[in-house]
This record gives sequence, C-alpha cells and structure tokens, in this order.
Amino acid sequence: MLQKQTALCLGLDPRLENIPAHLLNAHRTNRSDRCDTDRRAAACVVYDFCAAVVEAVAPHVAAVKLQMACFEQYGAPGMRAFKFTCDRAAELDLMVIADGKRGDIGISAEAYSAAYLGSPTCIDASLEPSHVDALTVNPLFGTDGVTPFLKDCQRHGKGIFVLVKTSNPSSAELQDLIIAGNDSFHEQVASLVAEWGAGEGLVGEKGYSSVGAVVGATHPETMARLRKLLPRAIFLVPGVGAQGAKPAETAAAFDSRGLGALITVSRSIIYAGDGRDYAMQAAAAAKRIKSELRVVSQK
Amino acid sequence: MLQKQTALCLGLDPRLENIPAHLLNAHRTNRSDRCDTDRRAAACVVYDFCAAVVEAVAPHVAAVKLQMACFEQYGAPGMRAFKFTCDRAAELDLMVIADGKRGDIGISAEAYSAAYLGSPTCIDASLEPSHVDALTVNPLFGTDGVTPFLKDCQRHGKGIFVLVKTSNPSSAELQDLIIAGNDSFHEQVASLVAEWGAGEGLVGEKGYSSVGAVVGATHPETMARLRKLLPRAIFLVPGVGAQGAKPAETAAAFDSRGLGALITVSRSIIYAGDGRDYAMQAAAAAKRIKSELRVVSQK
Repeated sequence: MLQKQTALCLGLDPRLENIPAHLLNAHRTNRSDRCDTDRRAAACVVYDFCAAVVEAVAPHVAAVKLQMACFEQYGAPGMRAFKFTCDRAAELDLMVIADGKRGDIGISAEAYSAAYLGSPTCIDASLEPSHVDALTVNPLFGTDGVTPFLKDCQRHGKGIFVLVKTSNPSSAELQDLIIAGNDSFHEQVASLVAEWGAGEGLVGEKGYSSVGAVVGATHPETMARLRKLLPRAIFLVPGVGAQGAKPAETAAAFDSRGLGALITVSRSIIYAGDGRDYAMQAAAAAKRIKSELRVVSQK
Repeated sequence: MLQKQTALCLGLDPRLENIPAHLLNAHRTNRSDRCDTDRRAAACVVYDFCAAVVEAVAPHVAAVKLQMACFEQYGAPGMRAFKFTCDRAAELDLMVIADGKRGDIGISAEAYSAAYLGSPTCIDASLEPSHVDALTVNPLFGTDGVTPFLKDCQRHGKGIFVLVKTSNPSSAELQDLIIAGNDSFHEQVASLVAEWGAGEGLVGEKGYSSVGAVVGATHPETMARLRKLLPRAIFLVPGVGAQGAKPAETAAAFDSRGLGALITVSRSIIYAGDGRDYAMQAAAAAKRIKSELRVVSQK
C-alpha cells in the first residue's frame, strides 16, 4: 500500500452476465479438457477474465479483493479459479484479500482461518499458507469466533477486515440499531475491533493493526466517527462506483497521514469496456480513479 | 422430518485430527490418482469418513448438516468432497443442510444463493440446483442481503436457517445487546426472520416457513422466548453434546405439536468410536440420542 502509493483496491466480482461476449464465445468453440463441463467452462472464463484484468490493472492498484461467492458458485472448478487468480495477483506483488465474510464458532472458525490465512492439516503435514493476505470476517459470533483468525494473523503475518458498517441500504436495519447507552450496534462492533486489534503481535511498526474494518463509502458521516474510534485500523471501503458513492466521499476513511484506507472499486473498473480491449479499458478506468483518490487522500 | 419421526440432525464437522487412524493409514499406503496430493488425500479421507458415517447413521436421523469450513479448507478437492457427501445423503433421502453461514450484499448474496440453493449461470445454460436443501445464513446485512436467498427458496423449494442466537459463549457480546426499547439484538433479528418467513410462497401446507432460525441449545430460556416469537420457524439447534447442552435442554425448541425443531449433534455421534467400527458406533450413538429426543419432543 505504501510502496504502491495508492489506496486503490481492485474488486473482482466476476459474473458471466457481464463478461465480454468474445470470452464466452472462445470457450464455446474451443473447449479443452480443463473446461469440459458447464461448471468448468464457466470457471475457466471467470479465471481468464480475472487474470487479464489483474495483469492490466496491477500498476494502478495496491490490492485485489476477490468476492468468494462469484468463484464458489462453480464448486470445485470455481475454487480452482479462485486459487489461480490469487496466485497470479501475488506474483504481481499485489496484496490479496479474500472477501468471504466468514464467521462461525471456534472449531469451525479455525477451519475457515486455516483455509485462507493458516495451514490446513493434511495427513502427514500441514499445507503452507495460501497467497491470501487477508480475509473479511463477520463479527456476529463475538470474541471466541474471531480468536482463531487472530491467532493465524499473529502466526503467519496475515490480516482480517471485520464487517463494521456495510455499504448496502439495508445495513441500517441491524447495524444501526441504538443500544441502551446511546451507542449504535456498529459502534459496539468497532469497540470489539479495537480490542481485538490491540492484541500481542498484531500492531505493526507503522502503528497499523492486522485487524482492519469494512466500512462502506455510502455512509460518509459514519465513516468519520469510526475513523476516530479506530485509529489503528486499516479501513477496507466498498461502495464507490456502481453502488453510488463518489471517490471524494471516502475522504474520512484516511487518517491524518493520508493513509490507513483501501478503497475497493469493482464494477466501474472490471466492466469499463465490453469489447476485446476490456483489460485496457479496465486499466484506464483504474488509472483515472487512482488519480481521483490521490487528491482525496491528500486533503 | 415428519416421515422420519425424529428431530435428530447429523452434524458433519470432519477434522483429520479426530478421524480414526486406520482411515488415514489406508490413504498413506494406497494413494490413487484421485488422491495424489496432500490436499486431495485429505479431502478423500474426509469424504470416505463422512460417507461411511452417513450411510450407517441414516436410519436414525432426518437430516445432515455439513460444516462448510471443514470441507472448504481443502480448496477444490474439499468442495468435491462436500458435493459427493451431499449427493450421498440425498440418495439416502436425508435433508441436506449446508452450514455455511453465508451473508453478503445483494449481488454477492445472489451468487451464494445460486451456489447452494439456486442455479449458477453457466455459458449457455444454468446448472440444476444442487442437492442442498437448506443453507445457514448470517443476517447482519439485513433485508436486501437476504432477499436473493428468499427468491431461491420460492423458486426451488429450498430453505434457509438464519442465525438468531448462536451456541457459543461469546455469542452474548453482540447478540444479547439490549436495544433501546428493551428488546435484545437477537429478538430484533427474530422479528426480521418472522417478516422474511411470511413472504409469498414461503409458508408450506403444515404452516412451517422455509425461513428457519438457528438457536443454540446452550440458552434454554432464550429458546423458549424465541419459540413464541417465531411460531412458524423450524429451529436448527446446535450445542447438544460436546458443546455442553443435554438433549432435555432442547425441549423449548419444539412447538405444541412436538415438531418444528431439528437438533444437530455432531462430535458425540461422528467420533463415538475411533476404531474400525466407527460407523457402527456412530449409528449406535445416533440411535441412543434419537430415543432421548423422542421423549423430549413429546413432553
């Protein structure tokens, strides 16, 4: 993030409905063994699309966020496309965020953490951690559900982004409920995030914690309050572009150093073009948004 | 559930650490092409274990709940083991519950719903829905995050179980917060579950909704209150056995007809034996718990 001099994070939410037609046509006429079933062919198209976009956009972004659902829906081939896309992004020195919003009780949270941040137990050994650098985590289970993730953050130098205030309209229904004592529910979550993120071995040299927060750009006032409550947390900020927020509305996500935020933009970049030059169009869109963000973070 | 005359649900949370040693040894000495890497071998052991347990236990349970994390940690081979286990359970006429606790904003929730309940879009067609009958869902995103799942419940006759009050000790931190107006957070979630579950096409002939609730057996008083708030919801009840609750503590989950609950038991059944007769031991444990539950539900 610091090296790349940008806060822009490429969001990969690939949907066949939006992927350029020529990529789908190529797989229709030219199926290989690797893509011999409907599910595999879909996963191949998703991977080819994502890899091309990542390669073109890499110079303009610090990180890539992969929406797990878009890969997972194709089962085993989808998970392979997910892994290969992570590997490609890591080769290009991008930070890799798995946007899975996982959360469960202790033993199951351990397995989710092993899947993305740690090392799953195999028959005679443990696997090496994957190329995923951070996972988005749902806080509803409380401390014992988050602890396994924190342990893998410490052990393997990984990170998590905890959902504090999401970008969607209905997020108000539960996340904005007022708790007896005048805090809102999402502020209570923020208190837990501050506590979790202050744990041993979780705060780095520059003062940022491995425990970040997801805060939607669609709520600029909430963002400003949360920035004060969570000075050490890196904010992962969705909502810019197709979801309606403008880059300028992310200003409050940055700290006084103009750092501490990753602004995720997905559809406005990955679907910037729908012809054969889609990857170049994506790169051009990313470059433009990067410039806009530079101005915003320096305010 | 009605046909099977039992409320027992087999929980499959397979962990290599707990799987009988001879199954691991068999894969050490006898690797096939299907299991030629560490990840694949682990997934093969997980599938072989789960399939044997499901086959032996099938006469004593109404449903199977697969903990996604335990499969997902092995990537693509793990997802294949998940699918094959679901298929085997469906062949044995068991209800199949994917315990993924998924939740996201609209577009991503659509993809999660397609993955488990609906039909993922492929290049020239949509896939048939999988053998999963129901998915556990995290409510934090509110109505727009749950709507895609509700649509697939209507279209494909599937169900969801929404997390209302989970079984783990830290669940109190956020789920029990008192909201201005004296309700607790989990009661607010219950109100939404009631609203979501009353939608068109979601209430069946017997009066039960496709939208159920996850309520931990470790909180019997909360369970009784939630039963009153959610008369139409089927409760999916974890927490019996290794987590500390006794079958008798699930009494409040049943409605006045002695129905409306699925009691999930995992570790006390699947690890009942650790020798070559582990599947028979699992069946014996399930049979015993089934009898205990029959007494409880008829009170």
